[in-house]
Amino acid sequence: MRLGTLTIVGVGLIGGSIGLAARQRGLARRVLGTDRQQATLQRARELGRIDDFLLDIGEAVSQAELAVFCTPVDCVVEEVLSSARHCAPGTLLTDSGSTKGRIVRALQNQLPPGVTYLGSHPLAGSEKQGLENASATLFEGRLVVVTPAAEAAATALDKLVAFWQALGAQVRLMDPDEHDRAVAYTSHLPHLVAANLAGLLPPALYDLTAGGFRDTTRVAAGDPALWAAIFEHNRDAVLGAMNEFQQRLEHFRQALQSDTRTELLSLLTQAKKVRDVLGS
Amino acid sequence: MRLGTLTIVGVGLIGGSIGLAARQRGLARRVLGTDRQQATLQRARELGRIDDFLLDIGEAVSQAELAVFCTPVDCVVEEVLSSARHCAPGTLLTDSGSTKGRIVRALQNQLPPGVTYLGSHPLAGSEKQGLENASATLFEGRLVVVTPAAEAAATALDKLVAFWQALGAQVRLMDPDEHDRAVAYTSHLPHLVAANLAGLLPPALYDLTAGGFRDTTRVAAGDPALWAAIFEHNRDAVLGAMNEFQQRLEHFRQALQSDTRTELLSLLTQAKKVRDVLGS
Repeated sequence: MRLGTLTIVGVGLIGGSIGLAARQRGLARRVLGTDRQQATLQRARELGRIDDFLLDIGEAVSQAELAVFCTPVDCVVEEVLSSARHCAPGTLLTDSGSTKGRIVRALQNQLPPGVTYLGSHPLAGSEKQGLENASATLFEGRLVVVTPAAEAAATALDKLVAFWQALGAQVRLMDPDEHDRAVAYTSHLPHLVAANLAGLLPPALYDLTAGGFRDTTRVAAGDPALWAAIFEHNRDAVLGAMNEFQQRLEHFRQALQSDTRTELLSLLTQAKKVRDVLGS
Repeated sequence: MRLGTLTIVGVGLIGGSIGLAARQRGLARRVLGTDRQQATLQRARELGRIDDFLLDIGEAVSQAELAVFCTPVDCVVEEVLSSARHCAPGTLLTDSGSTKGRIVRALQNQLPPGVTYLGSHPLAGSEKQGLENASATLFEGRLVVVTPAAEAAATALDKLVAFWQALGAQVRLMDPDEHDRAVAYTSHLPHLVAANLAGLLPPALYDLTAGGFRDTTRVAAGDPALWAAIFEHNRDAVLGAMNEFQQRLEHFRQALQSDTRTELLSLLTQAKKVRDVLGS
């Protein structure tokens, strides 16, 4: 595929990686960045994440054939709405947020004629955020969930799928709420649990941690504001997953308290089976 | 340091790594292995983990100046007691188990005159178990907790500390129960929580996991029987840590349910602070 202007709103880890990958693969005539701070945009250009930049988000998005909003989930709706007003018919807008239901619903039938929004969520990322950690291969072999909208033209969906595939990703179409329920288990609950583990460690025990603790809590180094917004956006599904987690933990506690080796073994064996399938 | 015979009981990841490191560093005149299966011992010799082996554990330990028991925590006491009967005065015995209180107490004043047991716990390891994954550098820069015993000769303690240091580790002396309470937070609770997360993932969601889920649950691939024994050995401390974890999780739930952004942020920020100190 070959786009005209690809606009990236928010040139952090995800936005910077999209820009870098798109430039290296020649997916757009021009990769245009926009962000809140000029210094960030200058650095992004220096590092080859974008070809050029504009500080005005509306202007930057209005020049796009495809614009990807890589900003916190609680900023996406407002940014899409305010910048879509400047867009020509045929413009395709998407985001990279970890939640989809609330964003998709808020944007439904709210855009100017011919301007299409479709949700995306690349299941890639890192607790190492920011421009400097961007990578052209971040999406290679990774899954990107795209949420199709009933009212959207099939050509827009085809273009978005082709875009992510051109970055090396596999695309799966999902209903936004089904996506949110799934990532509550695969990403949001694990983050919350990791933060809960890390948060209760007293400083006197830092030296006594090893690889297991570091692995288990790694994601808790993520940005608190980004994650608070994700939890709030996906509150019901996260609370549901937490509930299931707490019930199972109580089951673990009872097995341990009553010294029931078979029950402990069965819980640990079930976990190992799942984990072995996922690979390292 | 230069030992006579170093006997390793159980030539898996830890035992195999000790043997390999000791041989490469010339820490013993002979590294002698013992294990339940001859095939394992043959493979360990082939891979350079040991110089030689004996199937009879009593005989192998009786020839040692230092014997390290790298077997599951629920096997250590019986194995030490049964093989110590064959040992000459001056023999030093230790183990590499993740729990110390129960083992140390069970062995107190139970050994023949002149035979000393001191507890060790190298804070190193991997969910990738077994001989094949052994590494000569597994202990480099890692912490090994050693539990001194009041009745033990200072020379025995000095020898054990020098041994672990010669493998590249740093040694910390700790009371066995203090050790167990600490690792309940730094290792056992994280393992239990990781297993709980992995165990509740339905197969339909496997594809929707990414690096975060894999990191957070990695340790759950560990051996269920080994871990069930660890949890049982350290039951009280693990239940205490679980209790604190559950209370904090309930705090998280309330912050999320009542949509209290400041409280959510504060929990996530505290976690990030801890995690940032620990490094990647």
